[in-house]
Amino acid sequence: MSLRIGIIGCGAIGQDHARRLHFKLSGASVVALNDINLEATQAFSLASGINAKVYANYEDLIQAPDVDALLVASWGDAHEEQVLACINAGKPVFCEKPLATSAAGGLRIVEAEVKHGKNLVQVGFMRRYDAGYRALKKTIDAGAIGDVLMAHCAHRNPSVPENYVGDMGITDTHVHELDVLRWLLNDDYVTAQVVQGRKSRNSNGNLHDPMMVLLETTQGIRIDTEIFVTCRFGYDIQCHVVGETGVASLPEPASVALRSGGRQSTEILMDWKQRFIDSYDVELQEWLEDIKVGLVNGPTAWDGYFASATAEACVEARHSKQIVPIRIANRPAFYDRG
Amino acid sequence: MSLRIGIIGCGAIGQDHARRLHFKLSGASVVALNDINLEATQAFSLASGINAKVYANYEDLIQAPDVDALLVASWGDAHEEQVLACINAGKPVFCEKPLATSAAGGLRIVEAEVKHGKNLVQVGFMRRYDAGYRALKKTIDAGAIGDVLMAHCAHRNPSVPENYVGDMGITDTHVHELDVLRWLLNDDYVTAQVVQGRKSRNSNGNLHDPMMVLLETTQGIRIDTEIFVTCRFGYDIQCHVVGETGVASLPEPASVALRSGGRQSTEILMDWKQRFIDSYDVELQEWLEDIKVGLVNGPTAWDGYFASATAEACVEARHSKQIVPIRIANRPAFYDRG
Amino acid sequence: MSLRIGIIGCGAIGQDHARRLHFKLSGASVVALNDINLEATQAFSLASGINAKVYANYEDLIQAPDVDALLVASWGDAHEEQVLACINAGKPVFCEKPLATSAAGGLRIVEAEVKHGKNLVQVGFMRRYDAGYRALKKTIDAGAIGDVLMAHCAHRNPSVPENYVGDMGITDTHVHELDVLRWLLNDDYVTAQVVQGRKSRNSNGNLHDPMMVLLETTQGIRIDTEIFVTCRFGYDIQCHVVGETGVASLPEPASVALRSGGRQSTEILMDWKQRFIDSYDVELQEWLEDIKVGLVNGPTAWDGYFASATAEACVEARHSKQIVPIRIANRPAFYDRG
Amino acid sequence: MSLRIGIIGCGAIGQDHARRLHFKLSGASVVALNDINLEATQAFSLASGINAKVYANYEDLIQAPDVDALLVASWGDAHEEQVLACINAGKPVFCEKPLATSAAGGLRIVEAEVKHGKNLVQVGFMRRYDAGYRALKKTIDAGAIGDVLMAHCAHRNPSVPENYVGDMGITDTHVHELDVLRWLLNDDYVTAQVVQGRKSRNSNGNLHDPMMVLLETTQGIRIDTEIFVTCRFGYDIQCHVVGETGVASLPEPASVALRSGGRQSTEILMDWKQRFIDSYDVELQEWLEDIKVGLVNGPTAWDGYFASATAEACVEARHSKQIVPIRIANRPAFYDRG
Repeated sequence: MSLRIGIIGCGAIGQDHARRLHFKLSGASVVALNDINLEATQAFSLASGINAKVYANYEDLIQAPDVDALLVASWGDAHEEQVLACINAGKPVFCEKPLATSAAGGLRIVEAEVKHGKNLVQVGFMRRYDAGYRALKKTIDAGAIGDVLMAHCAHRNPSVPENYVGDMGITDTHVHELDVLRWLLNDDYVTAQVVQGRKSRNSNGNLHDPMMVLLETTQGIRIDTEIFVTCRFGYDIQCHVVGETGVASLPEPASVALRSGGRQSTEILMDWKQRFIDSYDVELQEWLEDIKVGLVNGPTAWDGYFASATAEACVEARHSKQIVPIRIANRPAFYDRG
Repeated sequence: MSLRIGIIGCGAIGQDHARRLHFKLSGASVVALNDINLEATQAFSLASGINAKVYANYEDLIQAPDVDALLVASWGDAHEEQVLACINAGKPVFCEKPLATSAAGGLRIVEAEVKHGKNLVQVGFMRRYDAGYRALKKTIDAGAIGDVLMAHCAHRNPSVPENYVGDMGITDTHVHELDVLRWLLNDDYVTAQVVQGRKSRNSNGNLHDPMMVLLETTQGIRIDTEIFVTCRFGYDIQCHVVGETGVASLPEPASVALRSGGRQSTEILMDWKQRFIDSYDVELQEWLEDIKVGLVNGPTAWDGYFASATAEACVEARHSKQIVPIRIANRPAFYDRG
Repeated sequence: MSLRIGIIGCGAIGQDHARRLHFKLSGASVVALNDINLEATQAFSLASGINAKVYANYEDLIQAPDVDALLVASWGDAHEEQVLACINAGKPVFCEKPLATSAAGGLRIVEAEVKHGKNLVQVGFMRRYDAGYRALKKTIDAGAIGDVLMAHCAHRNPSVPENYVGDMGITDTHVHELDVLRWLLNDDYVTAQVVQGRKSRNSNGNLHDPMMVLLETTQGIRIDTEIFVTCRFGYDIQCHVVGETGVASLPEPASVALRSGGRQSTEILMDWKQRFIDSYDVELQEWLEDIKVGLVNGPTAWDGYFASATAEACVEARHSKQIVPIRIANRPAFYDRG
Repeated sequence: MSLRIGIIGCGAIGQDHARRLHFKLSGASVVALNDINLEATQAFSLASGINAKVYANYEDLIQAPDVDALLVASWGDAHEEQVLACINAGKPVFCEKPLATSAAGGLRIVEAEVKHGKNLVQVGFMRRYDAGYRALKKTIDAGAIGDVLMAHCAHRNPSVPENYVGDMGITDTHVHELDVLRWLLNDDYVTAQVVQGRKSRNSNGNLHDPMMVLLETTQGIRIDTEIFVTCRFGYDIQCHVVGETGVASLPEPASVALRSGGRQSTEILMDWKQRFIDSYDVELQEWLEDIKVGLVNGPTAWDGYFASATAEACVEARHSKQIVPIRIANRPAFYDRG
């Protein structure tokens, strides 16, 4: 059985996912495409060899009887209504992050899904599918470092475009840590603090880079994350988890070791696309396997809501310079896992 | 277009490849199976969900009009006649190593293929598809270490079964280095020497382990490889290439770094299946892409013959304790690239 | 010319320094010893082969005409009056940390030294003499990472005695980072915050371990230091300095690399005495060279006062859970360098 | 008690040792100097502040009643007669390598020492005093890798002067491995082979660089050492010892880890003087301690002879391209160790 997928939003990431689902992964074909840019989407459909039907509006695509499941890769502002429409149609939907542009919007999706009565929504936090994070979680879960007490993280990009400003270090960048650390530590956040000090001269005018985000979990685990998006030297994701008896660290990507010119060195990736490229394949392949049997095992609507609500608290903390409590709605029993 | 594959030899590795081609990779379906154990193969065909037709003899399978290409994973003694049958049928064939159990057998395949006039045969040396070896080759080819002068390698297994004896360290184990180093260094071998010293007490009665193989190439590159198949501590593949201005080393597999009990450590794999598991996927996916357009870009029949001829010289060198010249037939222009 | 040294306080560390100065380093001999335990000191003087004169009170020792310089290694409560007596005698004095048990006491020493008009006091912060910290400073000063923006540190001990409680994580442990980071970054601190979360079950009853100290410098550099004194796995000192274009890290101690039992590993020291043992030699040898020519190039009385004042702010911050300003007296021009 | 040392040969290394003994180490003063360049030695004696008596001939210096022990740092051709003169005078002598310029000369020293009846001679193989090699030996002796089976070594220099030619890769460079590996493995050599392949374009006209030396020990341990003295990238000493259950490697020198420009790197030393600089201090300090109690615990005359004899076999092997037996005189019981 091959799943017939409709894709809403056919920009760069939508096209990547379309090719991935149609040509690279097994068990799916892309049969429907929608984008506000109709012409470009027609052209993509042909040029790629996918030859899917192109819809002028996403509602029709969602309703199409030959579409089994949806992937939303449109711009963030449209996610909420598109995902709600998928829920209303009772069809599984994979929504690229963010689930919604506000915690309130995320909560509305949660409520709609609960009301519908069946898990349909998965959010595109791909780090949970990274081999490195999975190995780290396995190490922690096996008790190799005892109970977790702290985590020291860094999210470093060599540079960002000029339109990357203000709170985007939190909402666009740190949001990946917000999701993956909850999953990694099996825990939720209760307070947030943001510390900003000396600003790099490589920050653009409306960006104060780097910053540090401090989170406290329900168990009292203390997490610090350096967000440094103009670090110049590479795309560098660090995660060091401190437990009662040891420290476990996210693997460095495998690299040729070179001895040359007085240095012994390995490579640091410069392009974020390389770092988690394999994770997208794993993420969507597992999503396909899961929805075939009516499950959502990846990040749920609740996880998407939680990430948004935490990001909002972090933004508030950045502006207030205070320790801000993270207020979360009551979790519906619906999202309990086995 | 989906290629229809027939598989000859359905033991463990044949079954793995069948599942890989049919379910995991894209662009192929397995339509035919053959094995001396007919019953088990019928059972596998059903249980796996592949539901391919099972043939009592491989000739019929090769001739079947709905079979586009073949994969040979039978026992080594049968490879030569099966591959020759594929060539006679004019169908592409992927043959697990060894191509033949003797250099002479490999040469007969080379001659048959040349006579047929078109590349059909690829040999299953999967290391050329390993991300680590590919990164190492890219580093060398980019001139990062200048011209290559030496290579220091190690092929270590934690243990081997009791029936691993005699020259198998060369014919079964070292043969992987024999192929991948020719490809890595763009060079051929001219002499071989084998050095055996102190024998590990973990060697079984008919095995002298470890040994060191010394090869010289046409350019004078000197390669030493430690073959140590009872090393106990892990499955550990090392390759350090020394150039005029630097040294480049095969990446260590990515691993969680752990601080615990007075040690800072990373994992060494214990099971060889884990080390090159991803390479099988890449190898067969690329093979599928290549044969669709009538090409063989992987290890050719000539490469398979060359590995066998070198292994035979190494075996002779082990017994004679002499430096043995490697005698190779003239290479048909047929195998020139680009 | 050999300096004649008098040692005040002949417990474990005083005896170590006595042997070091007398037998291991060049250019000094220990001629006078004082300790409240007169008998044990007599015994040590003979047994060690130093054969120094033992004084019943430290004032006489300081005044002794054949004593050129003093080393104070008594218990912390006595340091202030003993160092003041050395200043009054106009003799160079090396005082083990702490310079005084309060910032106010440290300031009194500063004022006495300024009034005396000549640098006489050096404080025993040995990390400035560690080859690793010196290499790190050289790297930063050479501009290898651009201007410094953040520093991530950790000070981990496998365990502490039962009488290690309360604020000692700051006053006894973190005080080393307080001094060495000011020197490393050429900067002073302006605020402190202490974050405590989940308590390790290996903490004793009156110890909340681990904690994190956050410091802000005058330039806005943000420093976070994990203090974890029951980490079990080793004595582990980390310092990662983040600059505008790179990250430089304190070297790991050199260690045999071992492949064994499925792990590739290096050693983490378990005993703090091993980690900085060489630094004591360098520290005292340089002190000898400096005072021969009338200089103090190591940590000054001002540095000792600054460390105490910062530690007091950290203690306040731990109790108040607030971000606490670090209030420092005006620095006398006397302590300007160069 | 302070030992009074006379130094024969006051070139660069003799002057270094003179300063080291007189100013840096404890328990010795340099009282006598000799060199063929009398004037320069006078100048050095004054300028250094050592103010030793300068002798026009070494015999007088050896005989001087106020000289307790000798250090020979003259050019190699003079070592034999100078060491023999020290033995005749019954005074302890530390001789820089080589002990003699031929195995025969080394054996004459051995015989003279045996005849004299007391250990007097120590040879300046400083690697035995390197912290890294000592840690490696401790690891092996503790059984961490089981019985040793193989060792893979490399001795790499960035470049050599124009007058470094012919067999100097063996006699000047490899001789360090020849001594330290015997000590490390508690074993002697029985055969040698030298393999030369592709020559680096950075070799000078009379130098074939790199080469590989293969040694076999009495226990059958197989040692391969890459000698590569124009490797350009650094002064890089490698030693990987393979045992029945693991591999132990010589520590890399501690280095700041740097993330910058897409690379994670540590430093490789460029200057050999830095690599073993600390070993000289340890070597001579231990020598002083030993000769005070009438012992020689470092490399003996026998060790110096053994290194020379093995080097001669390696030279023969390089020219003959054969596996050459290493012929050693019978070891006098005199050199047995407790």
